[in-house]
Amino acid sequence: MARSSDLGVALLGSKFMGKAHSNAYLNVAKFFSLPLNPRMLIAAARDPKDLRAFAKRWGWERTTTDWREAVADPEVGLVDVSTPNHLHADQSIAALEAGKHVACEKPLAGTLDDARVMLEAARKARKCKTFVWFNYRRVPAVAFARHLVERGKLGRIYHVRCVYKQDWGGPETPLLWRFRGKDAGSGALGDLGAHIIDASRFITCDEITEVTGAMMETFIKERAIVDDVASKAASLKGGGKRKRKPKMGRSTVDDACVFTARFKGGAIATFEATRLSTGDKNGNRIEIHGEKGAVRFGFNRMNELEWYDNTLEAGLQGWSTIDVTDGSAGHPYVGNWWPVGHGLGYEHGFVNQLADTCRAIAGKKVSAPIPDFADAYMTQRVMEAVVLSAKHRSAVKLSEVK
Amino acid sequence: MARSSDLGVALLGSKFMGKAHSNAYLNVAKFFSLPLNPRMLIAAARDPKDLRAFAKRWGWERTTTDWREAVADPEVGLVDVSTPNHLHADQSIAALEAGKHVACEKPLAGTLDDARVMLEAARKARKCKTFVWFNYRRVPAVAFARHLVERGKLGRIYHVRCVYKQDWGGPETPLLWRFRGKDAGSGALGDLGAHIIDASRFITCDEITEVTGAMMETFIKERAIVDDVASKAASLKGGGKRKRKPKMGRSTVDDACVFTARFKGGAIATFEATRLSTGDKNGNRIEIHGEKGAVRFGFNRMNELEWYDNTLEAGLQGWSTIDVTDGSAGHPYVGNWWPVGHGLGYEHGFVNQLADTCRAIAGKKVSAPIPDFADAYMTQRVMEAVVLSAKHRSAVKLSEVK
Amino acid sequence: MARSSDLGVALLGSKFMGKAHSNAYLNVAKFFSLPLNPRMLIAAARDPKDLRAFAKRWGWERTTTDWREAVADPEVGLVDVSTPNHLHADQSIAALEAGKHVACEKPLAGTLDDARVMLEAARKARKCKTFVWFNYRRVPAVAFARHLVERGKLGRIYHVRCVYKQDWGGPETPLLWRFRGKDAGSGALGDLGAHIIDASRFITCDEITEVTGAMMETFIKERAIVDDVASKAASLKGGGKRKRKPKMGRSTVDDACVFTARFKGGAIATFEATRLSTGDKNGNRIEIHGEKGAVRFGFNRMNELEWYDNTLEAGLQGWSTIDVTDGSAGHPYVGNWWPVGHGLGYEHGFVNQLADTCRAIAGKKVSAPIPDFADAYMTQRVMEAVVLSAKHRSAVKLSEVK
Amino acid sequence: MARSSDLGVALLGSKFMGKAHSNAYLNVAKFFSLPLNPRMLIAAARDPKDLRAFAKRWGWERTTTDWREAVADPEVGLVDVSTPNHLHADQSIAALEAGKHVACEKPLAGTLDDARVMLEAARKARKCKTFVWFNYRRVPAVAFARHLVERGKLGRIYHVRCVYKQDWGGPETPLLWRFRGKDAGSGALGDLGAHIIDASRFITCDEITEVTGAMMETFIKERAIVDDVASKAASLKGGGKRKRKPKMGRSTVDDACVFTARFKGGAIATFEATRLSTGDKNGNRIEIHGEKGAVRFGFNRMNELEWYDNTLEAGLQGWSTIDVTDGSAGHPYVGNWWPVGHGLGYEHGFVNQLADTCRAIAGKKVSAPIPDFADAYMTQRVMEAVVLSAKHRSAVKLSEVK
Repeated sequence: MARSSDLGVALLGSKFMGKAHSNAYLNVAKFFSLPLNPRMLIAAARDPKDLRAFAKRWGWERTTTDWREAVADPEVGLVDVSTPNHLHADQSIAALEAGKHVACEKPLAGTLDDARVMLEAARKARKCKTFVWFNYRRVPAVAFARHLVERGKLGRIYHVRCVYKQDWGGPETPLLWRFRGKDAGSGALGDLGAHIIDASRFITCDEITEVTGAMMETFIKERAIVDDVASKAASLKGGGKRKRKPKMGRSTVDDACVFTARFKGGAIATFEATRLSTGDKNGNRIEIHGEKGAVRFGFNRMNELEWYDNTLEAGLQGWSTIDVTDGSAGHPYVGNWWPVGHGLGYEHGFVNQLADTCRAIAGKKVSAPIPDFADAYMTQRVMEAVVLSAKHRSAVKLSEVK
Repeated sequence: MARSSDLGVALLGSKFMGKAHSNAYLNVAKFFSLPLNPRMLIAAARDPKDLRAFAKRWGWERTTTDWREAVADPEVGLVDVSTPNHLHADQSIAALEAGKHVACEKPLAGTLDDARVMLEAARKARKCKTFVWFNYRRVPAVAFARHLVERGKLGRIYHVRCVYKQDWGGPETPLLWRFRGKDAGSGALGDLGAHIIDASRFITCDEITEVTGAMMETFIKERAIVDDVASKAASLKGGGKRKRKPKMGRSTVDDACVFTARFKGGAIATFEATRLSTGDKNGNRIEIHGEKGAVRFGFNRMNELEWYDNTLEAGLQGWSTIDVTDGSAGHPYVGNWWPVGHGLGYEHGFVNQLADTCRAIAGKKVSAPIPDFADAYMTQRVMEAVVLSAKHRSAVKLSEVK
Repeated sequence: MARSSDLGVALLGSKFMGKAHSNAYLNVAKFFSLPLNPRMLIAAARDPKDLRAFAKRWGWERTTTDWREAVADPEVGLVDVSTPNHLHADQSIAALEAGKHVACEKPLAGTLDDARVMLEAARKARKCKTFVWFNYRRVPAVAFARHLVERGKLGRIYHVRCVYKQDWGGPETPLLWRFRGKDAGSGALGDLGAHIIDASRFITCDEITEVTGAMMETFIKERAIVDDVASKAASLKGGGKRKRKPKMGRSTVDDACVFTARFKGGAIATFEATRLSTGDKNGNRIEIHGEKGAVRFGFNRMNELEWYDNTLEAGLQGWSTIDVTDGSAGHPYVGNWWPVGHGLGYEHGFVNQLADTCRAIAGKKVSAPIPDFADAYMTQRVMEAVVLSAKHRSAVKLSEVK
Repeated sequence: MARSSDLGVALLGSKFMGKAHSNAYLNVAKFFSLPLNPRMLIAAARDPKDLRAFAKRWGWERTTTDWREAVADPEVGLVDVSTPNHLHADQSIAALEAGKHVACEKPLAGTLDDARVMLEAARKARKCKTFVWFNYRRVPAVAFARHLVERGKLGRIYHVRCVYKQDWGGPETPLLWRFRGKDAGSGALGDLGAHIIDASRFITCDEITEVTGAMMETFIKERAIVDDVASKAASLKGGGKRKRKPKMGRSTVDDACVFTARFKGGAIATFEATRLSTGDKNGNRIEIHGEKGAVRFGFNRMNELEWYDNTLEAGLQGWSTIDVTDGSAGHPYVGNWWPVGHGLGYEHGFVNQLADTCRAIAGKKVSAPIPDFADAYMTQRVMEAVVLSAKHRSAVKLSEVK
């Protein structure tokens, strides 16, 4: 039986993000003392056999193959939408209409139209809170970078430089669903670009007003067609040796995407998201230069923040690598985990976000904003501006994209 | 009720290591498919109130303030000794005599005499397996470094360079129990030196035969006396401002320890363990140079291994930073966690070791040796040789230390 | 008297580049065995007193305040144009018409019109060779990166990422001539952008076909007016404390410039040149990712090239830091200097280029192309395309810029 | 004809150091304004043909194969001893007795006995100044590190960690003179160890009082015998493929050397010098940790100093990479060269030292001590203590080594 301080959770989706979120629900209350503890109530997914195994492994109390049943359950207080992008709108709106809080995976939606109706639903459901899983905001170094901006340590910001570089999209990778526009919406832009657009907005405390120079490139125009199961195997094993030449199909998403942008506060920016940056496994990186200071963050060294203090004695200035693992020194989240110098890993960002989600639902303050649907809609508009800029080969003002 | 495939666990101790191990028991079966799953049966500690809160948080089924009761419990298959060093011997021996497997925290014991009787008890208890929590062996990059040595990729080894550098031991830190020789056994040597001695033996697949040039230094000879609770507060807050001058007491352990050593295979080595390496939070680092290749590992970047391949085309040789997060490429353990490029954190080493511990108890092979009492006894002998070398200001052969 | 193997040089200009080039003329024959040795014949500049001191220090045999006299001197074989950009055309054309070889500082000219007539003059002067001082091509790591591309080690190139980041242009810097459009032509674009455009073309062995998304930003719109001498002092001392508020004037050049671009071979690129990248002193950096490999170079670590070999055993792949100081291993130029591991500094790029210039004039092959006027004109066209893209807020094809 | 402000120089030796010093004599007055300018008067070496080519290339006015003639020359004010170690004593003493200043290559001598008589000769020659070419002291980052210590920025020093790692001494390297004890004195200790002993003394402003735990290891006991010319070729080409098995001879020097040490101020230290550190080309590195701050320097990135300020706001502390190229910010020497961010190379340390040598001879103050014979004798005593510690397998107090 649920304690009064419990928050019943329904999880929709059981793949990569289902796993990452389950881990968060399982562990959050071990490390954080929260006003409201999540209870792993219902997991919903299409395949009943897979779902049962998933739920058993992670400790979900019940399962259903009908997500509407999960959303409607009176014990559920929070619906976690971890399904593919094109399902976000229906599921989130149903949950909001049922009076549930919603935590939706990023990007907010597969299309700007979907995003807009989700935003409207969120505005109507006044008692419900919405959250979007931009997990990198809760990497301690990233949250700490924002704190520095908030404290005025960077001063006026001149430059923002964002890249999200991966390299798994070479010609040997088959035509996975991620390369089919109908299923995936977009390629590198939605998958990777959404993260760095959000991160740039989050850390700078500023908004993008113009996008220009966008190029969305499909370098590998044809890929080997494989049925779903085989494609997974091929993907995992890096292709292996094939006896006969495979049948090829067209890839219809961007392998890579670059653009420049301008922020309201005047900063100018470059963005690059790519699956073809040979040598970079998960190179989510952002650099911000202000008049008084500058920060650099790369997810491959997620426990570090590089910081340059332009106000120190000139001869002693340098890029400083802060080990962002010292809770007693004010580094966010890490005080709940291990002693200084004992770094966190990928999944901790989700746990940290969940802790703040629980606090926010309980009406408590959180140390840095969690993106709600209105916030994530701004990111979605920037993504749309990128698409338009690439299409029209010209600058696009955000005010024109709604 | 326990399933037949369950392994009932009794945990002795509920402090830092109690937390790290509990996290491992809670999560291991979520990420690893094991022949034997741990069941969190009994937690034992002295303070009943703290213990109850600890057990509730982590999900231990029962508690006891009498560790002998836990050890004797018929449902218990594995006793986890996570108490201070001077208790390791009594508890481990009792567990072995009760027919239990034992997983003991490092170092094996507070004294070489204790270690020797533990080893004898382990030898007698033929059905019981023993394990020592040298968790850094299960950092994927460290295990991978050993694999490279095993494959012959380094060739003949010339140099080993080990440091374990922390910096929390400055003059402002009060006289915590860790600075009292009676409670702690030794200072930096046992706390940090044990880890790098073990790591050097593990990665090189070799044994130290001689220790020389040891210096064990107490730089800060007096520290502020504080009662236990206050000392924790002071420790956490970095001291703060004190109204009156505190009463001082003598520190009786080494703040830092350096020595040189020789390996059986001929390599020569330098070792340094310190709590006064300003700027280094948890600088556990090892560098090994062989004829054909070399490796470097630093725990502050735990998902990376630096590798130099001396057999490549000369102009293309360089120190290569391997992102050791690719299970499909043969990087150990990481395939059980997240996709490539999504790094692990401090606690994952414990979970990985626990997975191998469960496999080993079930009679399965593990990919790299877990230190048993005989293995950890070798590290203990090296530690003793360091003490003797520092005392006599001369070289000490390991064959003389038993 | 000149030996038959001497090359009489006239140097026009005696400021920063005059110093860098003089150093090259003085030292080149000490380290390189050349078919033709430069002889430091005439230095020309406007201020006679400064010029005499300069010439005496560096060992120029004669001086003149009339550059036309220097250009016409029958003993002169090579005219080195190291004056401000707006003088390049007149001086280079006069030299070519006098039948001299010309080595001109970068960028080729202050305007595209100037550059075009220079190119025409170079085409007419069939017996004369032209060279442009894009010195970074002769940093060994940069030349070596091109060699890797030429060998096919990168395969098809997907991404180019270029930045040239400096930080001396903050609001405290006064209105130096570099901030006056009439004198300087452009700001960050011509000063820094020219270098990275050239480097991207050089290393990739490819040409830019389209520029888009350019933003040229004057962040600091007004700066303190100072007379020339005082401005130097202020610049050197970082401004100091001023008693009264200085008179302000408008800065009319770009403090920073960003754009995206496309290469003929299909690669897409981002470019950024800035004087406001707080923390970056001389951050000339280029990253290139191909199907088979990738390279990264940053001038702040000019003796290193980062290299990723995508064809190695997957588990051993990583970013490799090559110490590009091993002449016997095929690293260019360094074999003429010091043993392996004894790195070069900034000025060595000029000496290396001069060595190749002497070889080229003597009709010998050089290991990588030195930019002549036709080559530098391509870079100038890209710069013009950037200006047009920024002005029209749209994409500009290079074929439209001539 | 020499100006009154000239310092006539006689250079003894024309190999690697002859080249490095000649470069310094040629260039120093171009970059530094000195009270006394060196004049390249006489070069002395054994082989007349090589010597003539050397002198012509570098501009030495005269040559002689009799070094005593050069030393006696009345126009000579400074004798530069750049010959092998066993000649240092005779040549330096003769020069001092002739009333010349002496700049001797490091280490001071081949033996402690030689060093002692050199020291005595220096003491007697009251009007003569002595200098030893420990060039790394004049790397700007190293000199700056000492300045930080002098300013008290490190506070009480706890730890010193020195390595000088090279890797050219593998089994394929033939029996060069450097491996013959009679000619070379010692191996890694004298060649590399001398540099880091000096650097540790220089930066800490402290002296070593005890050496212990020394191991001097000859890993490669036999090497291919080659005549001098062939050995050079083999050395340069990395050996190549040999048709028949070469004749082998014994190597009689240390390939590598490790030891621990104690400083007068209480710091404890580890030292390692080696020619077998696979992957390290010229890895001269020193790390010093004090109560208030810490510094790290590695010659492979010679324009950088890593600095940790333990007095900053705790959350903003980190290892800071200072680009030590900013003369206006107080970085030593670099203001004489190029603008900030335009780094120096290996040979600049010699030029910087020569500038200070000229100043010191003219009676001017220099910003950091140049080692004279008394200073270098201290380093020589430490080297002797290392040899004794390795021989006796015990600690050696410096007070016992004279």
